[in-house]
Amino acid sequence: MTISAAVPSFREGEDVLPSRQARLVYRSGMAESTAGVAGGFVQGNLAILPEKLAASFHRFCQLNPKPCPIIGMSDVGDPRIPSLGFDLDIRTDVPRYRVWRDGEVVEEPTDIMSHWRDDLVAFVLGCSFSFEEALIAEGLPIRHIERKVRVPMYRTNIACKPSGPFSGPMVVSMRPFRPAQAIRAVQITSRFPSVHGAPVHLSHPHSIGIADIARPDYGNAVPVAPDEIPVFWACGVTPQAVIAAAKVPFAITHAPGLMLVTDLHNKDLAVL
Amino acid sequence: MTISAAVPSFREGEDVLPSRQARLVYRSGMAESTAGVAGGFVQGNLAILPEKLAASFHRFCQLNPKPCPIIGMSDVGDPRIPSLGFDLDIRTDVPRYRVWRDGEVVEEPTDIMSHWRDDLVAFVLGCSFSFEEALIAEGLPIRHIERKVRVPMYRTNIACKPSGPFSGPMVVSMRPFRPAQAIRAVQITSRFPSVHGAPVHLSHPHSIGIADIARPDYGNAVPVAPDEIPVFWACGVTPQAVIAAAKVPFAITHAPGLMLVTDLHNKDLAVL
Repeated sequence: MTISAAVPSFREGEDVLPSRQARLVYRSGMAESTAGVAGGFVQGNLAILPEKLAASFHRFCQLNPKPCPIIGMSDVGDPRIPSLGFDLDIRTDVPRYRVWRDGEVVEEPTDIMSHWRDDLVAFVLGCSFSFEEALIAEGLPIRHIERKVRVPMYRTNIACKPSGPFSGPMVVSMRPFRPAQAIRAVQITSRFPSVHGAPVHLSHPHSIGIADIARPDYGNAVPVAPDEIPVFWACGVTPQAVIAAAKVPFAITHAPGLMLVTDLHNKDLAVL
Repeated sequence: MTISAAVPSFREGEDVLPSRQARLVYRSGMAESTAGVAGGFVQGNLAILPEKLAASFHRFCQLNPKPCPIIGMSDVGDPRIPSLGFDLDIRTDVPRYRVWRDGEVVEEPTDIMSHWRDDLVAFVLGCSFSFEEALIAEGLPIRHIERKVRVPMYRTNIACKPSGPFSGPMVVSMRPFRPAQAIRAVQITSRFPSVHGAPVHLSHPHSIGIADIARPDYGNAVPVAPDEIPVFWACGVTPQAVIAAAKVPFAITHAPGLMLVTDLHNKDLAVL
């Protein structure tokens, strides 16, 4: 079912941004991957924490901007984030959520109306969908997209800088490229620091603690050809790994791959 | 012997640029490597050709800007290049020249007064000394500089785009870096397209036709540690290799490592 079919009140040509259109569909209860939805618009990772932990987490993001680039956050107890989207309601507009208690996922609802509290703060972090769009626009092939699987992700031995209860290893995503493509990919993604920016590593998986490139910790394996090198970017799964490791009493995130679609344009994130 | 000692008429604090001071020393006959001379000033590769071949060579450079980035050229028969230096005389100001006949070096004089002709055109091409200065300024170690040897250079299987008699493989220089340093080196050198710019290749020497990284075709071998990758930049030796391969009746170049010191500032070559 397409998004416009899902909400019959939207007609072609109507003056509603595709991003808002998508959010309204998810608000109505549809829960599927946001990959490829509302092309050109920024999608974000979500982390919601009680005010008591929010300052520590905010500082964690500030200390680790490559895995945790903040593109927006709410006021305490306020479910709106106007800087990210007109009429955006963080309690309903993500297709699927994960509710965490003591570091475990206890529920995966399609809205969090019943979980919302006056002391919650929502953080929205940049996501690799934005830089992948820029790579594709420059003609670089993205292996996991070609194969219609999730990007392979790995826990590394690169330690995030700790803040309060939040600490742990950086998670990275991997895309294989031929060397000249890898150099171009460094250049392109360097322009987008708010969506993970330049790679953190390339070649030599063992150097960052990856024992077997064929066995990712999250997502799906993709082959790396003999004339290619694996290129590794800091990944927005890092905060979920850290929230799990910190065993915080209560947190909410998006479900992997089912992101918040914002009204920001990917191209506006380019710093040069 | 230092340059200021070599020309006693220069006193400390005198209002002569260090670059011009160096050229005057070389003009007086001193012939030694320009590595480390006149820090901060751009040094260039030299290629001088008869007018009849100059248009083809100019087009060759235009077609192959990574190995052959033109930073200045003379008028036909005019030994001055005012855009590159006050009082610069291309016949005397390079420490040592190579005179080529039919693709062979026949002489290595310290000036070319007796070879100069009214139909000659001088091309000055950017040199890696400029981007190495930028890499060092960012704290990246340059192996061959640490070891006080010449950078290792290799003929590749990357074909230059041909123009008239000029064709042949691209020559590359190699610097080993740890992966995160290599990523930073891509970013830094991307800012300097007029001095070879971003690397053309990294890792996988065989992919570009390098059989043995320990046996460079020019310069000296340097070790690549197990946790490092070789990073390859297009090299200003390419035009000399191409002039040799084309067996042109007459050409003049600089002797490798003994470059033209210009009054341009390296930092002014940064495009961003």
